[in-house]
Amino acid sequence: MTLPSLEDVKAAAHRIAPHVRRTPLLRCAALEDLFGAPVLIKAECLQRGGAFKARGAFSAVTALSPAQRANGVLAFSSGNHAIAVATAAQTFGVPAVIVMPADAPAAKLRTTRALGAEVLTYDRLTESREEIGARLAAERALPLIKPFDDPQVIAGQGTAGLELAEQVADMGLSLGQVLVCTSGGGLAAGIALAIDADPAGPTLLTVEPDGHDDVARSLRAGEILPNPPGVRSICDALLVERMGQLPFAILSQRGARGLTVSDAEVQDAMRFAARELRLVVEPGGAVALAAVLWGKAPRTIGATVVVVSGGNVDLPVLAEILAAAGG
Amino acid sequence: MTLPSLEDVKAAAHRIAPHVRRTPLLRCAALEDLFGAPVLIKAECLQRGGAFKARGAFSAVTALSPAQRANGVLAFSSGNHAIAVATAAQTFGVPAVIVMPADAPAAKLRTTRALGAEVLTYDRLTESREEIGARLAAERALPLIKPFDDPQVIAGQGTAGLELAEQVADMGLSLGQVLVCTSGGGLAAGIALAIDADPAGPTLLTVEPDGHDDVARSLRAGEILPNPPGVRSICDALLVERMGQLPFAILSQRGARGLTVSDAEVQDAMRFAARELRLVVEPGGAVALAAVLWGKAPRTIGATVVVVSGGNVDLPVLAEILAAAGG
Repeated sequence: MTLPSLEDVKAAAHRIAPHVRRTPLLRCAALEDLFGAPVLIKAECLQRGGAFKARGAFSAVTALSPAQRANGVLAFSSGNHAIAVATAAQTFGVPAVIVMPADAPAAKLRTTRALGAEVLTYDRLTESREEIGARLAAERALPLIKPFDDPQVIAGQGTAGLELAEQVADMGLSLGQVLVCTSGGGLAAGIALAIDADPAGPTLLTVEPDGHDDVARSLRAGEILPNPPGVRSICDALLVERMGQLPFAILSQRGARGLTVSDAEVQDAMRFAARELRLVVEPGGAVALAAVLWGKAPRTIGATVVVVSGGNVDLPVLAEILAAAGG
Repeated sequence: MTLPSLEDVKAAAHRIAPHVRRTPLLRCAALEDLFGAPVLIKAECLQRGGAFKARGAFSAVTALSPAQRANGVLAFSSGNHAIAVATAAQTFGVPAVIVMPADAPAAKLRTTRALGAEVLTYDRLTESREEIGARLAAERALPLIKPFDDPQVIAGQGTAGLELAEQVADMGLSLGQVLVCTSGGGLAAGIALAIDADPAGPTLLTVEPDGHDDVARSLRAGEILPNPPGVRSICDALLVERMGQLPFAILSQRGARGLTVSDAEVQDAMRFAARELRLVVEPGGAVALAAVLWGKAPRTIGATVVVVSGGNVDLPVLAEILAAAGG
């Protein structure tokens, strides 16, 4: 198992620069008042496709030679990685075949199809997308772009970490910690690679839904532990069964720790994002913000960066959450 | 009447740089597909305070000497200028007295008070905020920072135009036209100053609510015409009785033209912004986007820039609009 390195993140940044956005790092006075220390929002919901996933997808697709990707690419995803791979495939004029759960948000299914991808659905509670993906990759002879357990995908997601480190420095601040919405661990691992030049450097905290906290438990136990089957959460983007081996190795090496938040805290964070940040954030994209709002993150000497991603939520669902009392 | 110049805009940009954000210029594939030409969103709802008004307020307050502002500043505003002036006053440690309509959105009243301003309310349909402002300025001996008919405020708003022109050039595009949400005309006039280096250059289109289209009518008539009293619109931020004299002179000189949109088109644009741009936009901030979505803007050879500002909308109102069918 060869782990990607900071050099791989820098190389990915160079390859994907024409295709992705440098997302803003927003300072929020209301959040700083609550937290009592500098807090900055890395607004990856403003990334192309509405989530950080564009970084990893373009990194992986540009790492393939034109011959390797000529017949198309294959991916499995709960939604945001699907949109990202379909966008990258469309950009390079090759077909995309995407395996998605049948209960993925309508907006995510619609967007992926609108990008020209062939979408195959499966039952998230009874079928394994990894098995379906492996079978299709063999049958159709297409390169499989895994959502997180892939060195080039991790390197691509890490470009968000390079950016936020630069942006924090440009503001004249030092980086104390980064809170990252986490499921398979690709984004968290990529950011850990990008920010960890200094061993006494910033800490990385993963954030997951309560009851679906395999990353937090795995990091504590020192081995990959699965989630119990059938757990439900409004965070549709964060419901993989277990984290990736590469992300686990990277995050373990770097001493990352895990936090969790409830669905109610997530909904409160979505309201806060709409009211104070003017950002639409999907449930899974709001967990790290929820952790800061609900006092689960430690205060550090340096600035706290909260990664907010993505923003693909069905409007009736968003409307119901915004209309609810509380927060 | 001395009109501000491009040099004043550049000077304002220098003064306010430490206090305001360089907001992103977002490309939106879904919008380009609909419009059939390059469209870029200048996301001023991500500006400090949630609207472009921070630019003008900081420009005006920094143009005052410390002695001139020592006793505080005074402003009248439907909300976003109130928040901006209160923020600038707080930054420089001086009091702010703000005259606001009693029916301003609760979020705007709450935010202004939370910034430490003294808020005085009036009845928008029966009282004149200009008269109240002039009386208070005399009584309290405070400098009045008008929301749009002030050279330094216009110069400050124009910094959004400097930024978007640079950002368009950085993308390798030429600027064809800019669509601007307009009420008093300060933002539109400032942007006109900033982008109009070339007489054969980009065109400026103001956008207003149907029935409250005094700017469009004034520009056509060659004289300032008022709105009929008592017109209602969901665009709370755009309901001034008549445009400013300075904005009228600047926009007339530069051949600006006016478009209008309905409340239903505005609500559709707010849904589009949430779904495709992941931005929370208030009704008055969405009029220019509505004009593009509903085919009211001409297609030009260069890129179309749509200014989207602000994002201060009460969540129950936003929820109701997002939940509605259509769009």
